[in-house]
Amino acid sequence: MEGGAAASTPAALPYYVAFSQLLGLTLVAMTGAWLGLYRGGIAWESDLQFNAHPLCMVIGLVFLQGDALLVYRVFRNEAKRTTKVLHGLLHIFALVIALVGLVAVFDYHRKKGYADLYSLHSWCGILVFVLYFVQVRELSSQACVGAKLGLAAKGAQLPGAPWLTQRVWPQAQLSESWLVGFSFFLFPGAPFSLRSRYRPQHIFFGATIFLLSVGTALLGLKEALLFNLGDKYSAFQPEGVLANVLGLLLACFGGAVLYILTRADWKRPSQAEEQALSMDFKTLTEGDSPGSQ
Amino acid sequence: MEGGAAASTPAALPYYVAFSQLLGLTLVAMTGAWLGLYRGGIAWESDLQFNAHPLCMVIGLVFLQGDALLVYRVFRNEAKRTTKVLHGLLHIFALVIALVGLVAVFDYHRKKGYADLYSLHSWCGILVFVLYFVQVRELSSQACVGAKLGLAAKGAQLPGAPWLTQRVWPQAQLSESWLVGFSFFLFPGAPFSLRSRYRPQHIFFGATIFLLSVGTALLGLKEALLFNLGDKYSAFQPEGVLANVLGLLLACFGGAVLYILTRADWKRPSQAEEQALSMDFKTLTEGDSPGSQ
Repeated sequence: MEGGAAASTPAALPYYVAFSQLLGLTLVAMTGAWLGLYRGGIAWESDLQFNAHPLCMVIGLVFLQGDALLVYRVFRNEAKRTTKVLHGLLHIFALVIALVGLVAVFDYHRKKGYADLYSLHSWCGILVFVLYFVQVRELSSQACVGAKLGLAAKGAQLPGAPWLTQRVWPQAQLSESWLVGFSFFLFPGAPFSLRSRYRPQHIFFGATIFLLSVGTALLGLKEALLFNLGDKYSAFQPEGVLANVLGLLLACFGGAVLYILTRADWKRPSQAEEQALSMDFKTLTEGDSPGSQ
Repeated sequence: MEGGAAASTPAALPYYVAFSQLLGLTLVAMTGAWLGLYRGGIAWESDLQFNAHPLCMVIGLVFLQGDALLVYRVFRNEAKRTTKVLHGLLHIFALVIALVGLVAVFDYHRKKGYADLYSLHSWCGILVFVLYFVQVRELSSQACVGAKLGLAAKGAQLPGAPWLTQRVWPQAQLSESWLVGFSFFLFPGAPFSLRSRYRPQHIFFGATIFLLSVGTALLGLKEALLFNLGDKYSAFQPEGVLANVLGLLLACFGGAVLYILTRADWKRPSQAEEQALSMDFKTLTEGDSPGSQ
């Protein structure tokens, strides 16, 4: 399905996206190079387990999360649902990789007998995870309300189908986990007014969580440098210089993603979006299967 | 002068602004409390000179810079020029206080024989100052083009006045410093099309510099904690906990300012703005004194 009239891609957008991807891949490669050259590489069952933490976080919470935000700008002429699935998948990949990174550091601390969650870096990191889950939870609750309204509308129009709202819906509400809610959101039953009220908040909190992730990565990098280099940091050691450049690249990637995301004339055209959403809702309220699109 | 029809203030905006100010004042007070309670206070001619650095940066580059960004949202019904002067003044105050903070740390390093500019915090800090100056420089160059166009338009309509564009303008161009340019920007000669093209870039880079300032403050806080607390940091010392809370407040203040700044329905109404700008340009091209408004 093509979502309404195909909009032309702004001329400069591909160059900015390419630049952001170049920055993102460079910073992933540079994190790998830093860990390989100066920290002995990565392994799960040794002291090198810690090194899985920065690599997973840079790949998951910075690069993949940033790319998840850009999906609606890059695939502006694809069907809304395809783009939404890609956005969700990238966030799931980001979250899974970040969770591996989280397990790596807690497991390493446990083996070494180090204290957990005492530093500003760790507090910010926990805040990122809490906000990430709140965002998905909020998304799921909005989606559930939308699905309920959609199902109710469908039930009202289909005599004999109220069992759908009376039996299926309460069950969904009882087992309302974020995964259930998330899958509900992919089921396009939410009315347009609900979605359009919620969308700006979702975009703002998405961007905020991403920027806080970048800030947390910078704090972690700084912590790793001060713990390991100590006084040698001020002697402009190669590792310190490499890590500082990595820090600036992290900040630049954050800035590039934010620029692409906030440029008003690069937003996915609302016309195509509205048409697609109206069609989704119309399909439901008129009694067709959502899968028939 | 009232800029066109007075627009009503959105109901929730004052509460969000009040909350941001409460956050901002709390973080300034908490920075003072941290330096007073755990770092011996502030003095210029002793080892305590360093402590002027974090306090000045939090007041200047975080609190005042954040407030400078909010001016157009808060004073939405005031004359455009009044708001612009307040925006400029807050940025000047912010910059002057930040420069005092910069001198404090360089002077302290010189007296102690410490190396300068080796850390990620310092690199990010220098980037903030460079971007701050580039932003003002860019503003001045846009304003100069605008003023030139305004003066040229005025000269073309006033026979005998071409000396204005031929003599006064080249001199202004020769001595084109950011201060000259800045004062030119306050002189509302820039055509509306030029301003409206440039405004989104100015807002984006303003927000980016502010967020980078918050990130740099977090890095500085972390550096100060790791240098002074060392291993005691992981023992949940009161100073460490206080500084972590301060760090979270810094991040929250950044988030609150960004939220108020980016909420689409809280933007200063473009209608009043356009009317005021059109009037400015009309006044110039029709030959009246800009001061007569």
